Amino acid sequence: MEERTEIASLGEFGLIDHLTKNNETKNASTILSVGDDAAVMDHFGRQTVISTDLLLEGVHFDLSYTPLKHLGYKAVVVNVSDIYAMNATPTQITMSIGFSNRFSLEALDEFYEGVYAACEKYQVDLVGGDTTTSLRGFVISVTAIGEVAPDSYVKRSTAQPNDLICVSGELGGSFLGLTLLEREKRIFEETGAQPDLEGQAYIVGRLLKPEARKDIVEYFAEENIVPTSMIDVSDGLSSELMHICEKSEVGCVIYEDKLPMADEMKEFAYKLQTDPTACALSGGEDYELLFTVSQTEYEKIRLNPAISIIGYVTAASEGKHLITRGGNKHGLVAQGWNHLNK
Amino acid sequence: MEERTEIASLGEFGLIDHLTKNNETKNASTILSVGDDAAVMDHFGRQTVISTDLLLEGVHFDLSYTPLKHLGYKAVVVNVSDIYAMNATPTQITMSIGFSNRFSLEALDEFYEGVYAACEKYQVDLVGGDTTTSLRGFVISVTAIGEVAPDSYVKRSTAQPNDLICVSGELGGSFLGLTLLEREKRIFEETGAQPDLEGQAYIVGRLLKPEARKDIVEYFAEENIVPTSMIDVSDGLSSELMHICEKSEVGCVIYEDKLPMADEMKEFAYKLQTDPTACALSGGEDYELLFTVSQTEYEKIRLNPAISIIGYVTAASEGKHLITRGGNKHGLVAQGWNHLNK
Repeated sequence: MEERTEIASLGEFGLIDHLTKNNETKNASTILSVGDDAAVMDHFGRQTVISTDLLLEGVHFDLSYTPLKHLGYKAVVVNVSDIYAMNATPTQITMSIGFSNRFSLEALDEFYEGVYAACEKYQVDLVGGDTTTSLRGFVISVTAIGEVAPDSYVKRSTAQPNDLICVSGELGGSFLGLTLLEREKRIFEETGAQPDLEGQAYIVGRLLKPEARKDIVEYFAEENIVPTSMIDVSDGLSSELMHICEKSEVGCVIYEDKLPMADEMKEFAYKLQTDPTACALSGGEDYELLFTVSQTEYEKIRLNPAISIIGYVTAASEGKHLITRGGNKHGLVAQGWNHLNK
Repeated sequence: MEERTEIASLGEFGLIDHLTKNNETKNASTILSVGDDAAVMDHFGRQTVISTDLLLEGVHFDLSYTPLKHLGYKAVVVNVSDIYAMNATPTQITMSIGFSNRFSLEALDEFYEGVYAACEKYQVDLVGGDTTTSLRGFVISVTAIGEVAPDSYVKRSTAQPNDLICVSGELGGSFLGLTLLEREKRIFEETGAQPDLEGQAYIVGRLLKPEARKDIVEYFAEENIVPTSMIDVSDGLSSELMHICEKSEVGCVIYEDKLPMADEMKEFAYKLQTDPTACALSGGEDYELLFTVSQTEYEKIRLNPAISIIGYVTAASEGKHLITRGGNKHGLVAQGWNHLNK
């Protein structure tokens, strides 16, 4: 039988001690960690970068098909991804959670196992947070802190005409993973049939256990590449590219045949009679990096197999376009995930 | 008739633009504010202090008697209070909110009016956050960032025997304000009678519009006082003092007749046939600063009318005690607000 320890039996401070007992500091920049009114850090002359996300059960995740360990991992990843999108290095996080009494201590342990696994992977220190009960639903709020050499951060607003538009990894998988899991959940609720995820490890993995592109930012540093603008793909490629264009006051052309898509993603899209290109353009939660670089960086970018050059920046007056495989030109539309319209 | 604008009519980015359109930067340390993947700050050789809180409707606040403007103000105050409790200066905050579709744009505007009022008062910049819908309930997550000269922050764990124990302001008012509002809410629900808050502006104000003790930390700087330990009073004086004692491995003696209590607080406590001392010791959310200083600072501390000396630090072996007005010695017990046991 599974063990179930009531969280109230520990009290708030007992719980915090329990959840942080193996929390070791990895970074010299972490001066004072969990256990006081605030944490203290020193980035020793580098600038501090900060980003925060609020994740709510039923809006951002569904616990009926999301293992808590994966959820803890992902909550960290989506935040450090924002730090990488500034061309910075994540160094610390704070993690706050609200949970109802249906959660046992074992459940929170599973969640924190994922949190610590991500902290290990991205070499960030968990330095603070807040734990509280909620009336219902699981609430997660993460703040990620990073560092960057003075004025070396990369904004969304500085793309220049003729720059190359590049994206890391592959697109659209996470969206199809969500589509699959939502379908299987519906079938289970209606018929009691067990989920059939056979052969779909790729798309399910893209949704449940995404990674942030540490490797890309490290490659930039090694090769002395400074992107002219950058953003992470959380709401879908089109939507993010349109942000860059609007903030930078430029236009763009991207090519359908250059969009990086995994075979597993395309196959499942065909199964659903959906266009894989639409998934790549509008599917959210890929957590890839979308960036622009000067054409002078072409040789260096070309050598990294994890980066695809998908188009180029134009003057704002030329608009924002997609050139299809057949050579047709379409206006780009943002159909990102908009939680406000759900 | 009151206007009601649906938030969905703006979309997420329209909403963020609307809520941040008058958001002007006050601090040189704020390098890049709202509008990118992350905010950037530079504390120019000073260390960065960070604290975060998660506030949930029904657990931490009740919208039936909490005006949204006050809630926005308080959400900022409780976080900057943690920064002051490190003897640091708050410089930035991030503010994330989750709200259901029962909230109109006008309601969010009211909330942000309070947020900006607090930012103005404490001279902090709102540099980021997240906005999302929730299935139900209002969710607030705030992270406060501050700065301090290298290694000048004050911890909870460094109180020394013979130090003076001091507290700012007055205690217990917020708890009685909550008791009053909860009582009036119950009466309204049962009988429809309008709340009677006549003459209770002090205790209601202590609950709904607390202030953080900026003035005390500024006084320390002016007078070159460095407390040996410090914490802010959010869970009740006893509970916080016991934290200092446990973390510092010391004991304490405090005197009932030295506990600072407002007349308005005492009068309402007598009305309820409650002991004002119990309210001062165990009532939460006072957001005063509890600190210890070396006896050599006595003359400086004595001169500040906003500071009360309530006792002294002892060796751990002597325990933690309260000396009553009648001269009796009682063991101190922590009965702070524990959301986990609610």
